[in-house]
Amino acid sequence: MPTIDHPLRTIRFTMAMIALLVSPHVTAQDQDAVFSTTQLEQAAALRDNALANSRAYDIVASLTMEVGPRFAGSEGDRAGVAWALEMMRELGLQNIRPENVIVPHWVRGSVSVNIVSPYPHQLVATALGGSIGSPVEGIEAPVIRVQSLDELDGLNASDVAGKIVFFDRRMEARPDGSDYGPTVAARREGPAKAAAKGAVAVAIRSAGTSDDRLAHTGTTKYAEGVRQIPAVALSNPDADMLARQIGTGQLVDLNIKLSARRLPDQRSANVVGEIRGSERPEEIVLLAAHLDSWDLGDGAIDDGAGVAIISEAARLIKASGLRPARTIRVVLYANEEFGLSGAHAYAERYANTLRQHVVGMEADFGGGRVREFSTLLPADRVDLADAIYTVLEPLGVARGDNESGSGADLSPLRKLGLPVLSLQQDGTAYFDYHHTANDTLDKLDPADMRQATAAFVAATWLAASADADFGFREPEAEEN
Amino acid sequence: MPTIDHPLRTIRFTMAMIALLVSPHVTAQDQDAVFSTTQLEQAAALRDNALANSRAYDIVASLTMEVGPRFAGSEGDRAGVAWALEMMRELGLQNIRPENVIVPHWVRGSVSVNIVSPYPHQLVATALGGSIGSPVEGIEAPVIRVQSLDELDGLNASDVAGKIVFFDRRMEARPDGSDYGPTVAARREGPAKAAAKGAVAVAIRSAGTSDDRLAHTGTTKYAEGVRQIPAVALSNPDADMLARQIGTGQLVDLNIKLSARRLPDQRSANVVGEIRGSERPEEIVLLAAHLDSWDLGDGAIDDGAGVAIISEAARLIKASGLRPARTIRVVLYANEEFGLSGAHAYAERYANTLRQHVVGMEADFGGGRVREFSTLLPADRVDLADAIYTVLEPLGVARGDNESGSGADLSPLRKLGLPVLSLQQDGTAYFDYHHTANDTLDKLDPADMRQATAAFVAATWLAASADADFGFREPEAEEN
Repeated sequence: MPTIDHPLRTIRFTMAMIALLVSPHVTAQDQDAVFSTTQLEQAAALRDNALANSRAYDIVASLTMEVGPRFAGSEGDRAGVAWALEMMRELGLQNIRPENVIVPHWVRGSVSVNIVSPYPHQLVATALGGSIGSPVEGIEAPVIRVQSLDELDGLNASDVAGKIVFFDRRMEARPDGSDYGPTVAARREGPAKAAAKGAVAVAIRSAGTSDDRLAHTGTTKYAEGVRQIPAVALSNPDADMLARQIGTGQLVDLNIKLSARRLPDQRSANVVGEIRGSERPEEIVLLAAHLDSWDLGDGAIDDGAGVAIISEAARLIKASGLRPARTIRVVLYANEEFGLSGAHAYAERYANTLRQHVVGMEADFGGGRVREFSTLLPADRVDLADAIYTVLEPLGVARGDNESGSGADLSPLRKLGLPVLSLQQDGTAYFDYHHTANDTLDKLDPADMRQATAAFVAATWLAASADADFGFREPEAEEN
Repeated sequence: MPTIDHPLRTIRFTMAMIALLVSPHVTAQDQDAVFSTTQLEQAAALRDNALANSRAYDIVASLTMEVGPRFAGSEGDRAGVAWALEMMRELGLQNIRPENVIVPHWVRGSVSVNIVSPYPHQLVATALGGSIGSPVEGIEAPVIRVQSLDELDGLNASDVAGKIVFFDRRMEARPDGSDYGPTVAARREGPAKAAAKGAVAVAIRSAGTSDDRLAHTGTTKYAEGVRQIPAVALSNPDADMLARQIGTGQLVDLNIKLSARRLPDQRSANVVGEIRGSERPEEIVLLAAHLDSWDLGDGAIDDGAGVAIISEAARLIKASGLRPARTIRVVLYANEEFGLSGAHAYAERYANTLRQHVVGMEADFGGGRVREFSTLLPADRVDLADAIYTVLEPLGVARGDNESGSGADLSPLRKLGLPVLSLQQDGTAYFDYHHTANDTLDKLDPADMRQATAAFVAATWLAASADADFGFREPEAEEN
């Protein structure tokens, strides 16, 4: 991490903050208001300072250059933990520590996917995360194309047995990324469901929105008692090619060679740093992002950007000289991508102090501008979010509903009832790069990241300053 | 090539053409006009039919699916020649023939480029066309960064000796592609000039405009008497990474492994087809595109699109039932990319009948809309171009100057004085895909290709119908 300099404007900003601390506004509080005028002014000042001075981009630039890819269990994973500890020290956080997490270790190996007939083509492909390898000579079989798991369900096993199933659903780009879920269903469950009908391998159209010849990886899940079969993703243009050849009505034979394999588990860590609360230090405002990335790119947007935004939000509060009433805890989770190891380890480690987590906020949707503020709070605490929103609105943030989910790393605590504030970032371009080799620094816009930092720092400050708490939600019913 | 169907609207169009043939306009000609009213109406009708019915996209779809990459000397090269002969037969051209061309045969092999220190990174790279390979263990050396050949010229050999020279000029996207020339100078001449100062290898920033992690290939030239050194291109994000590491002020070591090599020459062919002229068949209007492509992509935009546009323009004339006065000759050249073998062979074969080539038109800038009509004619024949332009203007085409160059395949004849009509296509996005794995069918827009076909068919018809000739230009002075 390069040494961060302290420009004059930061000093000027600190002086302004001190002025606010001693301002007469402190005593002028409306008894019904959720926040004092001073608290709101402090949040606005932190926000405006972040808009001008956020170094979030510099942080992710450092991470991508000095570490690069950091897939669970890899050397980059270990280097990422060391980098994060040092980064937090440089930012001036407190109680900095690694918290051990055991992570799986899968390696992609090499991949070679070829249309053998009718028109031979070498296709750009990559293994799905967790896929087994193929025999050395590859698996060669005719292809059967389906659009969805439902379509596969409707087929007879005799139509599928001995074939390679091609899941050919094209994902649509949307600001909220909401077409990702329906698209990745086949990635997650397709190989197990196809194998159950006797398929010998699976190829999916990349669950991404770009027309680049770069394939999109992501985790697949085998099912117990069902044969494991190799699974790959094709880039969109290569999926087009396969679909066009199938469209001629001729039998299409594909060969898939894959040397992916599982190695012994490794040790990694969640990296934690805090700003200790001055009044109620046992109460925690949790800021979440994940330190790991897929192996194909540098993990700039997923989730270097999130790491940088929440770390920088904490730094800006620390550097302001203000002290939050509650503790602000930054957690950079291990292995989100390949099984949520860090999130589960955190939930286990803090199971007995779960209720001390007042509210959670997560940054895991790239470096885009925050476009909407939604929440997942007990219904009688939405007034807190409405009050926070007054400081976010000037950033061009829309007010969303109280039906927000959370990112993946907060999901174990969310399911147990943790209230969530969701600063929803614009993800229109996110799935052009996500989980591909294209996840590199140039895809980030420093100005967008300043706006996102501004939203996070303002919301974090108010959440950590509020006298009121956010209640606790009912635990969620288990999903199927 | 899939069988091309003949929809009813083509039959209706043919009837309309027959009506034009017997129209009273034929006799109503202004003695001063370059073209008769009928000729202009025929051109406009061909244009409008192309706008509605051009099958250029289908032709390039067939080429990319049934052949794919077709680099000089490869199996795809031979398959491309067979495809083109069959395609011309299906389109109804005449005098279809392959004309033998000997082509070089270079193979890319594998490439591996890594930053060794200070921060190890695997970089996306590809060999420059013609590069020699490296020793098996690679070439490892410190990097020296320059922006241009001029900057290299200014360095002492002692600063360059033993180093890898990194040419780091970023190309800018423009509609006319005019930043390509200044950018590729380093690709063409950099390795020879760097070697002359003792460099051990060269890495250039890709001469392309995209932020994708796909490297851009293209030919480099070694100089006689200068040691040959391996040369690669890095994708733009990877060039960014190298530049950032250099920007820290630390010494940056790079390792380049390359198994590229030259194999024995191979036989290929220019593929020629014609519509014989009814009045002056010995006079030739030459339509040029190239059949070969680089090996990384499917050659959809470079130059499948050009192949399709000129072939479809000829088909539309043939299918109209009209007979041009002059012969329209479609030439699909062999090996444009790696040394202009086909263009030189053509110039040699037709050296004695050079003056029978009345005018040339070339399509080698993708599938974009024609945005400008410029020319390279004897000054006293520009009135012919002005008259042709009246039929192009409704397509949204601007009128350019008489200082046009030509594409590469026409350049040998152009240098000898061949007049040229240039239908300049929009190339704003062209260099996002050109010479990379991303040169695939999805980058083409069928509507844009219809417009381009419309411009080519109208201009071709008038050039082949004119009573006047286009004169002949003074041979060009040899370039340095």
